[in-house]
Amino acid sequence: MNINNQHYRTIWPAPDDSNRVMIIDQRQLPHAFVIEPLRTLDDAVVAIRDMHVRGAGLIGATAGFGMHLAAVQAKPGQLAEALLEGGELLDNSRPTARNLKWAVDRVLKAVEQGSDEADKKRIVFETACEIADEDAAFCKALGQHGLQIIEELSKKKNGKTINILTHCNAGWLAFVDHGSATAPIYAARDAGIDIHVWVDETRPWNQGAKLTAWELQQEGIPCTLITDNAGGHLMQQKMVDMVIVGTDRTTHTGDVANKIGTYLKALAAHDNNVPFYVALPSSTFDWNINNGRDIPIEERSGDEVTAISGLAGNGRIETVQLTAPGTQALNYSFDITPARLVTGLITERGVVAANREAIHKLFPEQ
Amino acid sequence: MNINNQHYRTIWPAPDDSNRVMIIDQRQLPHAFVIEPLRTLDDAVVAIRDMHVRGAGLIGATAGFGMHLAAVQAKPGQLAEALLEGGELLDNSRPTARNLKWAVDRVLKAVEQGSDEADKKRIVFETACEIADEDAAFCKALGQHGLQIIEELSKKKNGKTINILTHCNAGWLAFVDHGSATAPIYAARDAGIDIHVWVDETRPWNQGAKLTAWELQQEGIPCTLITDNAGGHLMQQKMVDMVIVGTDRTTHTGDVANKIGTYLKALAAHDNNVPFYVALPSSTFDWNINNGRDIPIEERSGDEVTAISGLAGNGRIETVQLTAPGTQALNYSFDITPARLVTGLITERGVVAANREAIHKLFPEQ
Repeated sequence: MNINNQHYRTIWPAPDDSNRVMIIDQRQLPHAFVIEPLRTLDDAVVAIRDMHVRGAGLIGATAGFGMHLAAVQAKPGQLAEALLEGGELLDNSRPTARNLKWAVDRVLKAVEQGSDEADKKRIVFETACEIADEDAAFCKALGQHGLQIIEELSKKKNGKTINILTHCNAGWLAFVDHGSATAPIYAARDAGIDIHVWVDETRPWNQGAKLTAWELQQEGIPCTLITDNAGGHLMQQKMVDMVIVGTDRTTHTGDVANKIGTYLKALAAHDNNVPFYVALPSSTFDWNINNGRDIPIEERSGDEVTAISGLAGNGRIETVQLTAPGTQALNYSFDITPARLVTGLITERGVVAANREAIHKLFPEQ
Repeated sequence: MNINNQHYRTIWPAPDDSNRVMIIDQRQLPHAFVIEPLRTLDDAVVAIRDMHVRGAGLIGATAGFGMHLAAVQAKPGQLAEALLEGGELLDNSRPTARNLKWAVDRVLKAVEQGSDEADKKRIVFETACEIADEDAAFCKALGQHGLQIIEELSKKKNGKTINILTHCNAGWLAFVDHGSATAPIYAARDAGIDIHVWVDETRPWNQGAKLTAWELQQEGIPCTLITDNAGGHLMQQKMVDMVIVGTDRTTHTGDVANKIGTYLKALAAHDNNVPFYVALPSSTFDWNINNGRDIPIEERSGDEVTAISGLAGNGRIETVQLTAPGTQALNYSFDITPARLVTGLITERGVVAANREAIHKLFPEQ
């Protein structure tokens, strides 16, 4: 995707030194565009935990490259232990995200084919690159499947603007490229369909206000920022044609863990007959958990609710306190949207109903 | 209610000069407690429009005292015109609020009984004081009716903590005293019931984070701030026993206009069998509009979404920009919760089902 008309991915090995992995520090956006190098496993763990990078696909890819950095750091004869320990640290860096474990497991499995430590290290790096490439390719593919839904809506509305509501950032900033929820939007733009996006600001971290609005503007997609409170009213007023969100983990039975507040939008969509789609590459499916209620929900610091950062009049990023001293806040990061509220899942293999039978039919190898 | 253990109302005529009306400038809370004098009709209009004061009952009371200030300013022989013009300005200062028109009409009707201009001016002032006194009395009364609901829940839970979720500030800061949604909470506290309040931060103006959390802390009520996104998840986790919100206008058929986002909480309450109550003095009923869809919905500046104020490290209240330059935001202030999602309306005469028959039975004079 483009930033100031230059193409970027969200993570890449430095061209002159593949032991340095480059990311965009998303905490600084949209006020500053800062590229940050990750040189160690710890750098990768901190980048995920403290949200220098975030989003299902991107933290999966960061975990892949984190395994590469763990391999680079491993002492001779201790590669296997280094990868196991590194994998555990990466997997635990955020609890709800499915792609972390998926990426770590993929690296650990691939490395079994290596003949010696040098060969295994090569495999780790190649697998990390594969994970990133595949993430971009799967997002692009699911965008084409999502496009068909938007095309049909556009025909029904005789080419009038299609208004799409999204929550959080499941944009290219959340993946390696294209994004999940945004991929159909970018595909629709490329197909000449008139679209407009309602961007939920997405408290408390404001991924919508800081990232999605910025990303869509960089791509020239018309969009309007709204508070998380507004979507229900907009749907009542028939100002929303469809909802597309991403997901951090979706069970093979169709229950969707996504950024806190997604469930409220799904309820409103259901109450107003607005189609509610979830876009995901298959790496985000959890093939073991049968009920969304069993997905662990991350709890982050209440400080993310009581204080906020932004661009001050002096041109610096400053943090201001929103509440009286001593105010306690509780900060769950995700909620579960039950399958019954989901119109369909947009995957790299096609759009599928949110139930066990349909999902397993599309992914019979699982 | 108490601030630092001293009793305050939210609006009062200065003891030494009734032509000066005192308010608490709620834009400064919780960082500074500033008392502001209103000396003219324009002061009152600006205080309402720019949200120095806000909340159904309080802006009604401010409109009442605004009429008093208009009367004080009126040139000899022009009192009638001054009151009509002042009433129109006050009524139009915020579009969704029902109490504005209610208060203005009450003053205009009362003044008809006056014998001459001096007598009429006396009546205007007395009516303004009556509106304020009645607001406090009605809130206190509805608190007692709401208390019965909480008492029953407490019995069912064998005295375990009752968790009440509220949206926006329908606290004493939104009325002259006691509040609407908070009155049953204060009554429950006084009755020795163990309660805890989930406070929605209430974007974009953050009435929950700035006002409700502060107000409850001043009263010693245990409370926890949450994002507006969190309530659905808390209800799914059975961490909410009931919801109580206020309203800016409720139709006599039971549809409820309240702060944007209320509808989403009502949907979540319905989906999780959590009772959803709306507390209001009867001054907030609209006896003419039959369908909530016909209530005008205020739209405020998008700047309230893209920028935010808080206490900076230097001890000053500063505004920081949250978004990239050029980000457009849409900012509706209210939404409509249809009567079908409302468990009951808590009024000064008792708790009533949210339908035309029940409401008119309780208020047969309408």
